Amino acid sequence: MAFQQTETGGETLIEGVMGTIRQRIAGRSLTPGVKLPSIRALATTMRVSKSTVVEAYERLAAEGTIRSRPGSGFFVSAHLAPLSLTEVGPRLDRAVDPLWVSRQALETDVNVLKPGCGWLPASWMPEAALRRALRSIARAETASLTEYGTPLGLRPLRQLLARRLAEHGVEASPDQIILTESGTQAIDLLCRFLLEPGDTVIVDDPCYFNFQALLRAHRVNVVSVPYTPVGPDLDRFAEVLEAHRPRLYITNSAVHNPTGATLSPVVAHRLLRLAEQVGLTIVEDDIFADFEHAPAPRLAAFDGLDRVVQIGSFSKTLSASVRCGYIAAPRAWIEGLTDLKIATTFGGPSLAAELVLTLLRDGSYRKHMEALRLRLTRTMTETATRLAAVGITPWIEPQAGMFLWCRLPEGLDASELAQKALAHDIVLAPGNAFSHSGTAAGFLRFNVAQSTDERLYRVLATITR
Amino acid sequence: MAFQQTETGGETLIEGVMGTIRQRIAGRSLTPGVKLPSIRALATTMRVSKSTVVEAYERLAAEGTIRSRPGSGFFVSAHLAPLSLTEVGPRLDRAVDPLWVSRQALETDVNVLKPGCGWLPASWMPEAALRRALRSIARAETASLTEYGTPLGLRPLRQLLARRLAEHGVEASPDQIILTESGTQAIDLLCRFLLEPGDTVIVDDPCYFNFQALLRAHRVNVVSVPYTPVGPDLDRFAEVLEAHRPRLYITNSAVHNPTGATLSPVVAHRLLRLAEQVGLTIVEDDIFADFEHAPAPRLAAFDGLDRVVQIGSFSKTLSASVRCGYIAAPRAWIEGLTDLKIATTFGGPSLAAELVLTLLRDGSYRKHMEALRLRLTRTMTETATRLAAVGITPWIEPQAGMFLWCRLPEGLDASELAQKALAHDIVLAPGNAFSHSGTAAGFLRFNVAQSTDERLYRVLATITR
Repeated sequence: MAFQQTETGGETLIEGVMGTIRQRIAGRSLTPGVKLPSIRALATTMRVSKSTVVEAYERLAAEGTIRSRPGSGFFVSAHLAPLSLTEVGPRLDRAVDPLWVSRQALETDVNVLKPGCGWLPASWMPEAALRRALRSIARAETASLTEYGTPLGLRPLRQLLARRLAEHGVEASPDQIILTESGTQAIDLLCRFLLEPGDTVIVDDPCYFNFQALLRAHRVNVVSVPYTPVGPDLDRFAEVLEAHRPRLYITNSAVHNPTGATLSPVVAHRLLRLAEQVGLTIVEDDIFADFEHAPAPRLAAFDGLDRVVQIGSFSKTLSASVRCGYIAAPRAWIEGLTDLKIATTFGGPSLAAELVLTLLRDGSYRKHMEALRLRLTRTMTETATRLAAVGITPWIEPQAGMFLWCRLPEGLDASELAQKALAHDIVLAPGNAFSHSGTAAGFLRFNVAQSTDERLYRVLATITR
Repeated sequence: MAFQQTETGGETLIEGVMGTIRQRIAGRSLTPGVKLPSIRALATTMRVSKSTVVEAYERLAAEGTIRSRPGSGFFVSAHLAPLSLTEVGPRLDRAVDPLWVSRQALETDVNVLKPGCGWLPASWMPEAALRRALRSIARAETASLTEYGTPLGLRPLRQLLARRLAEHGVEASPDQIILTESGTQAIDLLCRFLLEPGDTVIVDDPCYFNFQALLRAHRVNVVSVPYTPVGPDLDRFAEVLEAHRPRLYITNSAVHNPTGATLSPVVAHRLLRLAEQVGLTIVEDDIFADFEHAPAPRLAAFDGLDRVVQIGSFSKTLSASVRCGYIAAPRAWIEGLTDLKIATTFGGPSLAAELVLTLLRDGSYRKHMEALRLRLTRTMTETATRLAAVGITPWIEPQAGMFLWCRLPEGLDASELAQKALAHDIVLAPGNAFSHSGTAAGFLRFNVAQSTDERLYRVLATITR
C-alpha cells in the first residue's frame, strides 16, 4: 500500500490524520458508533488531499479503530476503548512520556544498556538465595502452593512486616497490613479507594515517573511541588493546598526517586501539620527503605497511620518477579480496602509471600542487603566520577540508593540526548519524564548499578559534544 | 462502654445511627470535612434519644470515621475513603452479598466445610507437579527469578497459549495475548479500559458472584439476563440491548458458573449477531475451559477476537497461589491495555508464568486434568445422589465442571439455610449471591469437590427439616 512521503514535522500527513481521529476518539469528542467526518470535510479542515484522508481512514479501518459501512461512510468502532493513556491529557513528547520510557526499559534485549531503568541488574539480585527458597518451599508442607490465602494475606509475613515497620517507628498491627501483588498495585488500590475523577493529587517535582501514568489512569488532576534536598518545598506546598484542596499527596520516603534526597525531620513535621489543617491524606511509598544506611524520618511514624498510609514491596531489593507488596493503613480502612482487593483481584500473593517470608526469616535478605548497600555506595562514587568526566554532575550526593539525579552541561536537552542514545542502544531516563511541570529538561536520572559499562561513557562523550 | 440493648430488626439503635452516617458518607451526601448533623437534629430525624446519637458519634470518632472538634461539633474525617463496596448500591443482606460470601469462604479455617466455595480442595490440585516445577525453576538458568519481564509477558507462554486458543478455534497471535496476575485482574483491567462510570453492563442471571462485586467497584449500571440451559435468554437479551444500550456483556464460556450450563452453537451465533447490531463488546471468561470433556462453542472463535475479548487463568485448574492469567484481545487494543497494565501494576507474572509454562510443557498439566475430569464426573454423580436424598435437586445435569446449581425443597430460603449452616461450621453459597435480580432465593450452588464429607449431608438434613 503506497503512501505519501511528504513529511511534516517528522510525521507523514496520513499519520497526522490518523492521529487526529484517534485523539478525538480518546477524548470522546467522537464516540463509539458515531459517524466520522466525511472524507471531503476532513480534507478541507485539515488542509490535506482527499486521497490522504482516504488512506488514513482505510488504515484506521484495517486496525479496527473505525468501520466502513458501504454507502454510509465511516463510523467509530463501537467496541473501541476510550481509555488511551498516551492520549489522555496533553500530548507528551514520546521521549518523556512515562509510559514510553517504561516500555523502552522493559522491552529491550540484553545488548541494550539501561542506565535509565529503575531496577538493579539480575546479577546484583540474590539469585542463589531465591533458588534456595524455591527449593525449600518445594519441600515444605504448605497449603500456599495451591490455595488462595486469607483476604489480608499470609499472616506470618504480615507479623514480620509489622515488626519491621516498628523498627522504623511505624506502629501497625498485623491486621492493619494487607498484602498486594506489588507496590504499584498497592498504590493503585489506594487510589481506587480514595479518589474520584477530577480530584486533585500532589506529587513531587521531580517524582517517580510511573506515579504520573498511574494518576492519569485515575483521571485526576495532578499538581506538583518542587522537591528540595530535604523534602518538598513547604511554601509551595502550602500554596498548593490553599489553591487546590487536594485529596492526596503521593511521595516516597527513605531515598527519594529520582533525586536521592532525604526528608528531614523538620520538614516531615511541618508537612504533617499542613496536611492536618486541610485533611490531606498522604501515601508514603517505602519501597527503597532497605537501601538506607541510616534511617530517615517516616511520615507514617510521626503520624501514626492516621492520615498517612504506607506501601512497600520487595521488587527493588529482592526480585521484581516474586510479586509481593503491602499496604499499612489506618484501621478504619482495612475492611473497605480488603473488599476492593477481593472484588478486583480476588486472590493475592500466596506463593510469593511464602518466598519473601522464607528469605526474611533465613537471614539471606539481611545479608544480601548489607552487601548491596556497600556495593551501591562504591558504585555511586565511581559513577559520579565517570559522569563528571563528561560534564554531567549530580544535583546532590545521595546518602543511599541507586539513583543519581544529574545536571547536563549547559544548553543540552535530556530528551534529545535520550533519542540519540537510543540509536546507540542505550536507554536513558530524561528529566522531564519525572517532572510534571516539565522543568527538568537539563537532567538525567542514572541508575548507578546499570551504569558500569565503559560503552555508556563513550557514547555520552559522543552525544554531549 | 454501655450501650442500649434495644433491638430493632436485629440491630441496636446505636448501630442504626452509625450505619446511617456511614451510608451517607459512602454515598457522598456527607463529604470529607463536612459538619455532621447536630446531635439534637439527628435524634429528632431518626427518632432516637440524644444519648443514642452521642454514643454513635463517639464510636464513629473512635474508629476514625468522624472527628470531634470541641465547641464546633463532629465532622466527617477528611481522610475517609468514599468507596465502600458494601455500601454502594442497595444494601444487601450480608448472607447474599458477594463480598461477604467471598470473605466467608476465604477466611475460614480447616475444620469448616466449604461446599459453597468456588475452588477445588488442595488435595485435588497437582501439588507434586507444582513442587517438581518449583525445583526445576530453582535449578534453571533463567532471568525470570528476578526480572520484571516484558510488557506483554513471558513470550513462550503466550505462544503456547495462542496454540491452546487455536485448539478452541480462537485465532490469536501471541502478540494479542497479555499475561496478567489473575483472571479477575484481567477482567478488571478490561473494565478500566472500556467502561466509564454510569455505563451499563450485562451479566447472566445467575452469574459468578464476584462479577457483581467487581462491577460495583467500577460504578457501572448492572442489568442481568436469565441464563437458560443453552445460554442467555435471547429474547430478554434483545430487550435489554434495546432498552439500555449497554457497553459490555461479561459471561463465561465452557462450563457456566454457577449453573453448569453449556452455550449452544445456535445461541452463540444469534448472540453475536445481536451484539454486532448494537456494537456490544463481550468479555468471555474461559477459566473453566479445561474442565470440559467435549469443547463447547466459544464466542471468541465465532467472532475472531473482533468484539469478543477472552480471558483465562490457571487458578481453578492448577493453583490459586501461582498467580497467572491472560487476556486475548483485538489487536487494536493491545497497546492501550499494556500501557494500563504498566501504569497500574508495572510488572506481571514472571516467576508464576515460568511455573505455568513448565507444567504445560512437561505434560503434568494434561495428565492432571485428565484425572481431574474423571474424578469430578464421578463426584458429581455421587453428590447429586446424596443431595437428592435430602430433597435438593439440580436444575440441570452439567456436562462438566465442579458446580451443581440446585433447587431447594419448596418453601426453603437459601440465605436462611446458609446462616443456619454457618452455625454448624459449613459455608454454603446461597442463590441470591449469584442473582442480580434476586430471583434465586430457592437455589444453592454446590462445589462437588467440597461436598464429599458426610457431615454436610447430616447438617443439610437437619436444617432443611
